Amino acid sequence: MKKIRVICIGRQFGSGGREIGEKLAKKLSFGYYDKELLKIAAKESGIMPELFEKADEKPINSLLYSLSVGAQGQGAFLTGYQDYLTNDKLFLFQSDTIRKLAQRESCVIIGRCADYILRGRDDILRVFIHAPLEQRIERICRLYDLDEKAALSLIKKTDKRRASYYGFFTDLSWGSADTYDVCLNSATLGIDGCIALLADLAGHDNS
Amino acid sequence: MKKIRVICIGRQFGSGGREIGEKLAKKLSFGYYDKELLKIAAKESGIMPELFEKADEKPINSLLYSLSVGAQGQGAFLTGYQDYLTNDKLFLFQSDTIRKLAQRESCVIIGRCADYILRGRDDILRVFIHAPLEQRIERICRLYDLDEKAALSLIKKTDKRRASYYGFFTDLSWGSADTYDVCLNSATLGIDGCIALLADLAGHDNS
Repeated sequence: MKKIRVICIGRQFGSGGREIGEKLAKKLSFGYYDKELLKIAAKESGIMPELFEKADEKPINSLLYSLSVGAQGQGAFLTGYQDYLTNDKLFLFQSDTIRKLAQRESCVIIGRCADYILRGRDDILRVFIHAPLEQRIERICRLYDLDEKAALSLIKKTDKRRASYYGFFTDLSWGSADTYDVCLNSATLGIDGCIALLADLAGHDNS
Repeated sequence: MKKIRVICIGRQFGSGGREIGEKLAKKLSFGYYDKELLKIAAKESGIMPELFEKADEKPINSLLYSLSVGAQGQGAFLTGYQDYLTNDKLFLFQSDTIRKLAQRESCVIIGRCADYILRGRDDILRVFIHAPLEQRIERICRLYDLDEKAALSLIKKTDKRRASYYGFFTDLSWGSADTYDVCLNSATLGIDGCIALLADLAGHDNS
């Protein structure tokens, strides 16, 4: 396996994928991109960051997007941008940013179909982090100060959205083992266990 | 994570999962059970080994099984065993064998829903090995002396059967990342890379 330069991490909501990615990047002295991607894409494309945030990991086609924007009464705000506002066009700008970042530096990228966007490169590691629902509910209750019912609802909604976004922009299946190089259960392996394993795969000396 | 005593390996056909399991068991000085399970289950249950082999990793309910047996003209051979011959009953005997083995010794078990049968234990590692179709076709052509078309057909048929068997006897999804603790792409990580990673997780010192 060629030396890993880019680690793309897909994750179930509440599995600790973001935490693993952030700590892994620090351990490897890699760049780290999660929400940061949206601001860079906005800067590079000249499109307002709010539009990237609104579309972030949401799969909606042009017509549905226009309708939802209309329904929210924000039509005036968007006047003049109609041609740019479809999620698939924002996806293209964001993809361009991901490709440039991955070309420029070693980094960890969270979600946003980065594994698919960078397909064909032999120096990427495609990772998926998951955990049983019980542990994810516990984590989300703690981090977001929610009760169990609200946490479960947020988990289901977010995972459904991520799976749908991934399926919309790729020809692969989100969360299916064979979409990735490595899938890890963060509840049984532990957050630190996952970091050590991935750092090891990326050629970091853990000893 | 508690020290691993049993490693259950699910695998796409042609991914090298069996080879990884066999070499891993040797490296860890663990027992290794693939087809061997069938003979042990037969011996322990007093049922002919041929019946376990016929039912191996095949999901068929009683009625369909009786019909398929009848269609093959083997009805006479099976007379007197009707009550024992349903695949779900053979599955129960086999499950019992798997539980006893896992209780008795540290081991690697290939397929046969062992991960599900041993659920609840905190000293098992549930693994899934996969690889892109292209590499699996190449492997199967080489190992079984088949042309590409025949290899592809055998891969599709075998994987469909394994997924169906797994889905029939468990409430989990075969090949879905969150069914397992670790899923590995043997084409990108390499057979030896997978073995080293799993040995490391099982507490083996690779240095």
